[in-house]
Amino acid sequence: MTSAVEPGPRIGIIGTGAIGGFYGLMLARAGFDVHFLLRSEYAAVSERGLQLNSAVHGALNLHPVQAYANAADMPPCDWLLVGTKTTGNVELAPTIAQVAAPGAKVVLLQNGLGIEDDLREHLPESLHLLGGLCYICVHRSGPGIVEHQAMGRVSLGYHSGSATHDAARRQAIVEEGAGLFREAGIDSQAMPDLDQARWHKLVWNVPYNGLSVLLGANTSTLMADESSRELIQGLMAEVVQGARACGHEIAPGYAEQMFNMTERLTDYWPSMYHDHQHQRPLELAAIYARPLAAARAAGCELPRMQALYQALSFIDRRNG
Amino acid sequence: MTSAVEPGPRIGIIGTGAIGGFYGLMLARAGFDVHFLLRSEYAAVSERGLQLNSAVHGALNLHPVQAYANAADMPPCDWLLVGTKTTGNVELAPTIAQVAAPGAKVVLLQNGLGIEDDLREHLPESLHLLGGLCYICVHRSGPGIVEHQAMGRVSLGYHSGSATHDAARRQAIVEEGAGLFREAGIDSQAMPDLDQARWHKLVWNVPYNGLSVLLGANTSTLMADESSRELIQGLMAEVVQGARACGHEIAPGYAEQMFNMTERLTDYWPSMYHDHQHQRPLELAAIYARPLAAARAAGCELPRMQALYQALSFIDRRNG
Repeated sequence: MTSAVEPGPRIGIIGTGAIGGFYGLMLARAGFDVHFLLRSEYAAVSERGLQLNSAVHGALNLHPVQAYANAADMPPCDWLLVGTKTTGNVELAPTIAQVAAPGAKVVLLQNGLGIEDDLREHLPESLHLLGGLCYICVHRSGPGIVEHQAMGRVSLGYHSGSATHDAARRQAIVEEGAGLFREAGIDSQAMPDLDQARWHKLVWNVPYNGLSVLLGANTSTLMADESSRELIQGLMAEVVQGARACGHEIAPGYAEQMFNMTERLTDYWPSMYHDHQHQRPLELAAIYARPLAAARAAGCELPRMQALYQALSFIDRRNG
Repeated sequence: MTSAVEPGPRIGIIGTGAIGGFYGLMLARAGFDVHFLLRSEYAAVSERGLQLNSAVHGALNLHPVQAYANAADMPPCDWLLVGTKTTGNVELAPTIAQVAAPGAKVVLLQNGLGIEDDLREHLPESLHLLGGLCYICVHRSGPGIVEHQAMGRVSLGYHSGSATHDAARRQAIVEEGAGLFREAGIDSQAMPDLDQARWHKLVWNVPYNGLSVLLGANTSTLMADESSRELIQGLMAEVVQGARACGHEIAPGYAEQMFNMTERLTDYWPSMYHDHQHQRPLELAAIYARPLAAARAAGCELPRMQALYQALSFIDRRNG
């Protein structure tokens, strides 16, 4: 039996964890030519494929998988989706450069602020760098097995590359990326300002990621207690304040909307909780230190967020 | 063999935990007529006495102990030292009234703000109510056994009673109380303003008590990490700010002095940590809610302290 592969861009997935696995699998099932770079899970995925248990899409399997243990073995890709932890971005730059086709688009499907800035100087100039914000509840439950609880939307924005000074081309690239996701049945939109999009995402990440570690609690537990609810709201308000100081107005009601959306999630453990449980370094620079520094540079102190960051830094170092 | 008991005031200890046990034992050994009210530890203390293992005073034993399981059996006392948790103060009022001699002085050897206000309306008018701030590192290690790591100073202030409008008499009563402690070899001083004294103590209690629970860390661990040090300093600065808003100027350098003093403590676990470990309710009202409310009423927000209070409230409820 042969499978019909549509002509189209070649997509590389760098880091096939929960995020890379989910989006890569969805794109591959939609007929795209998707190549997965894996490390510890290479053997399992080669043997059994990728398994997605989705509350939205049902149980889906991808097998065989175009899986690689070494970047050197991968064909050059037109789009690279990076789903690794931000804490390893700089070390990952040579791998990205190696796998990228000339003029490839590299999309960081990661949380936090300023992460593209850190990576940019380590990438060839010819590559386009984009950021992607994933509004999704997803986690790994085993090698090559992804559990998808809710949502899935991806917001894309252009960071830098040869289209930096060409608004129309920038826009076309971002729309093309969003189009790939939409063809795979995933809600996706182009964002005119990546920093603005990243600040929006922080409204959720700052309270829920950090408090899941600090208080050892999932979203349902955090949303069930009056004090943690107030703390979440206080932190969200500070992120909105920080964004404003940095020139990004977040619409009134947006934080409340994120808060109410979380009310409808069931027992969701944010990624930072999983990182802490597995003694991986926490993404504190991207989610806390960078936004705090940006706000401070704009003359704005965010004391609750800073206190949370300090507490998490203590926990992170002790956990290392 | 008979022991020579000096004539003098009769002293009652309400709550013979670490604080009540330490000061009661020291006063009894100095020759004062001290009577101890106990609950769960009555049998052990009656049988084996009180044992103090002190890094300052050596190993001291008091045996026999004038111990009581019921307040009704105690003789009327001229001074009552209350070393129980603030969370039980209102329920304790009838016991205090029962044991107090006419015109007795009741001293709350407790942390926090406004605790005398809560108790006052439940006490007979004839009683003098005082507050005492204990600068001491002490904890129970077993029934009737007290471990004393460092310090011991008691700052006393007058709260209310028939001397409220008689400054000289107020002063005489507080000096008399401080004199009792000094006769027992304990550094003690009269404070002209109890609220001011209580705000001073909060400079230490707010960061160290709460963070010991939130981060599961003792003073040495907290002082060894750059992030927790910054968090402690940020919280201390907010307490100083709150005190100022409430009309109590804390001298420049005081917070730094508390910080440096803590640097010299070895592996001290604050009382709130022990409360949490033993699933007792945390003293959040006295140490956090009351000061926050007082500062807010004076137009001053303390966001770090509030965030810590909210996190601790969440933890406390889940622990109950």
